[in-house]
Amino acid sequence: LKNSGAEATAAIVTVGNELLYGETVDTNAAWLARSLAALGAPVVKKLTVGDVASEIRGAVREALAAADLVVVSGGLGPTADDVTKQAVADLLDRPLALDEGLLARLEELFRARGFREMPPLNRTQAEVPEGATVLRNQHGTAPGLALEVQAKLVVLLPGVPRELRGIFDGELRVLLSERFASRLRPVHHHVMHTTGIAESKLAELVEPRLPSDRGPVTLAYLPDLRGVDLRLSARGLSAAEAAAWFARYEAEVGPVIAPWRFEAQHGDLAEALNAALAAAGKRVAVAESCTGGLVAKRITDVPGSSEVFVGGVIAYDNAVKTAELGVSEEDLRRQGAVSEVVAAQMARGVAERFGVDAGIGVTGIAGPAGGTPEKPVGAVWIATALDGAVEAKLLHLVGNREAIRERSAQEAIARLYRRVTTEAGRGA
Amino acid sequence: LKNSGAEATAAIVTVGNELLYGETVDTNAAWLARSLAALGAPVVKKLTVGDVASEIRGAVREALAAADLVVVSGGLGPTADDVTKQAVADLLDRPLALDEGLLARLEELFRARGFREMPPLNRTQAEVPEGATVLRNQHGTAPGLALEVQAKLVVLLPGVPRELRGIFDGELRVLLSERFASRLRPVHHHVMHTTGIAESKLAELVEPRLPSDRGPVTLAYLPDLRGVDLRLSARGLSAAEAAAWFARYEAEVGPVIAPWRFEAQHGDLAEALNAALAAAGKRVAVAESCTGGLVAKRITDVPGSSEVFVGGVIAYDNAVKTAELGVSEEDLRRQGAVSEVVAAQMARGVAERFGVDAGIGVTGIAGPAGGTPEKPVGAVWIATALDGAVEAKLLHLVGNREAIRERSAQEAIARLYRRVTTEAGRGA
Repeated sequence: LKNSGAEATAAIVTVGNELLYGETVDTNAAWLARSLAALGAPVVKKLTVGDVASEIRGAVREALAAADLVVVSGGLGPTADDVTKQAVADLLDRPLALDEGLLARLEELFRARGFREMPPLNRTQAEVPEGATVLRNQHGTAPGLALEVQAKLVVLLPGVPRELRGIFDGELRVLLSERFASRLRPVHHHVMHTTGIAESKLAELVEPRLPSDRGPVTLAYLPDLRGVDLRLSARGLSAAEAAAWFARYEAEVGPVIAPWRFEAQHGDLAEALNAALAAAGKRVAVAESCTGGLVAKRITDVPGSSEVFVGGVIAYDNAVKTAELGVSEEDLRRQGAVSEVVAAQMARGVAERFGVDAGIGVTGIAGPAGGTPEKPVGAVWIATALDGAVEAKLLHLVGNREAIRERSAQEAIARLYRRVTTEAGRGA
Repeated sequence: LKNSGAEATAAIVTVGNELLYGETVDTNAAWLARSLAALGAPVVKKLTVGDVASEIRGAVREALAAADLVVVSGGLGPTADDVTKQAVADLLDRPLALDEGLLARLEELFRARGFREMPPLNRTQAEVPEGATVLRNQHGTAPGLALEVQAKLVVLLPGVPRELRGIFDGELRVLLSERFASRLRPVHHHVMHTTGIAESKLAELVEPRLPSDRGPVTLAYLPDLRGVDLRLSARGLSAAEAAAWFARYEAEVGPVIAPWRFEAQHGDLAEALNAALAAAGKRVAVAESCTGGLVAKRITDVPGSSEVFVGGVIAYDNAVKTAELGVSEEDLRRQGAVSEVVAAQMARGVAERFGVDAGIGVTGIAGPAGGTPEKPVGAVWIATALDGAVEAKLLHLVGNREAIRERSAQEAIARLYRRVTTEAGRGA
């Protein structure tokens, strides 16, 4: 079996009434799906059922019919509503029996936590189905369990995310790598981050550059409020083979998307701005009206931001724009707070006042109220100051208040990032 | 059937390769589950499969075996990888046929969007299974489809969240309310928001107050970084009956949780602070160091915040604390930036400088770097100024940078909220 060429497939069964109510987002299912795909056993089916033994048995049976590996999560706790282990033991006809070694470990765990003795309820957690492999749980009392079922494998994991992830990344990963070996087809990814261009527009640029034979590479556009990631994926290749394919795509696609692209380890544009500022030896301050602190929050989300970010002024009220940033009262009166001249004075004013090289100014109408025919909701002026030179741009954004604020902040960060990366070399 | 007493149940089938990769979180499944529970048809099973006709047929068959109503989402687009409609038509033996009325509506839609004619590919979207009811899609080209299957109902919805939600809240809700009528058992919820108390501590206070006969009410603790919501749910009652039960719980539980409780329509503490400030006729300004704009961002997330929020200073660098907020250089040198005296000067300084009644000051170590044995990562001073009187408190927070920042901001907002709601009545 180990040397069979057939690709191993996986199915996921998540158990829990709270998942059926839709109040708890099923992060375990998504995490397991990504981890199994990365390991090389892609998920072909996911099922969710409540804490009901007959439903669990039915779901595991369906999952076994669909895949070589079935991962079940949830319902391994010590209380009466945790029925997963018993249900699977019944389905597979593997009676539960007390595992003395596991019992000793659990008792030790409770002593280490300061209990005089283990609560009797937890004794059931030391019972394992006949023939099961026990997988160590570093973060809790419910161990993982792996059961060989004819040519297939059923794995039970606790539903607490930290415990599930710990077991998967610990003994389970080793077991799966050994058990499915050459039947695993790991996936390699290569991500190109863009911002400031719509998905459809990006596709228009990218599609004509793709090789007619795409080889083992698939392409996905992943859009959110901040931009669009272009993700290349290749399955069943070595890392070196995948890298060679990705390089071919980079050569074709890279040049056409360059104006909107940024590089950031965690995919965050603020991370890219901070790195660019640090490389250029420059520091920044921000002046925000409609974004109300979001631009500063984004920049300071990044660890180590104090190297390049000194602070800012949130000038929500016009009196603050005048008093703290030196915005002209007359311009405010004549042009209004949402105007090119005010945005420019905010960016320049905060950079001068805080004694730094770069400034950002944002002023606009985030809504839902406050729009007028001339300045509707979504009208946002963004200004950047760099080494004394100011540039400003008017955006017309769509969406609700949150979307307008997120897009405004992203565009402000993007505009300063472009200027720092293109002007820094030829700066004063 | 309409007057049968048996409760209607639902199953959800979500279709899409991207859902199996785990890269896309399945928000449709959670949204549908909540909406169906609220409507009164609880979900008993969820399945996810890829864009493969045989898998889709299998999943819909399993779902029909489990529930009275099957909602399928995804795979209704016009391209070759959208196979859901054909798969379901084949499974139920309902051949597709062109719906002339629907075709005319689609063509009109494309003309309205400025196309000279509809792309030929979209013609397939006007094909419907024999006997299907077409559900209008206000936001896109793929209509919803409802099919009677013996005593059950199968509904197909597009996977784009806005389109799915629009159809559900539009014609589908009406259809389901009529079709399942007295078999629906709507759920009523009553939520009590708390912040500043751990889930386990809250449970210790709440559990002894619960009636021994809980009646039709179930209780859930819903924790996140900002606090714990206590949610009461009651099924199968009229609104008035549910309200009577909730009032009994309020009478018992309300008094013991009052010190940590807040009232906010959308569950956001900043919303509660803004309302309390507005009611007291007071305005606020903020001075932030480690939270870097997050407190201001939270306050301005709330529409209409300009009524109570004037602005703030992000004093990341110590020079900004001195120059913009009047923090004493000597105190900074002697006590350090993360100290009671600096937090207090920040809160008082920003309120005085901005000419408002209330100020918030936050200074701490968000990590991952910057901690020392005396001031470890997670040490955060919070100060509030109200009508000239300053209070400060040292927090010891756990978690990563994001968690420490989120908790700091929440605690700062909470402390001012408590003061405004308790002191405003007896203020100057």
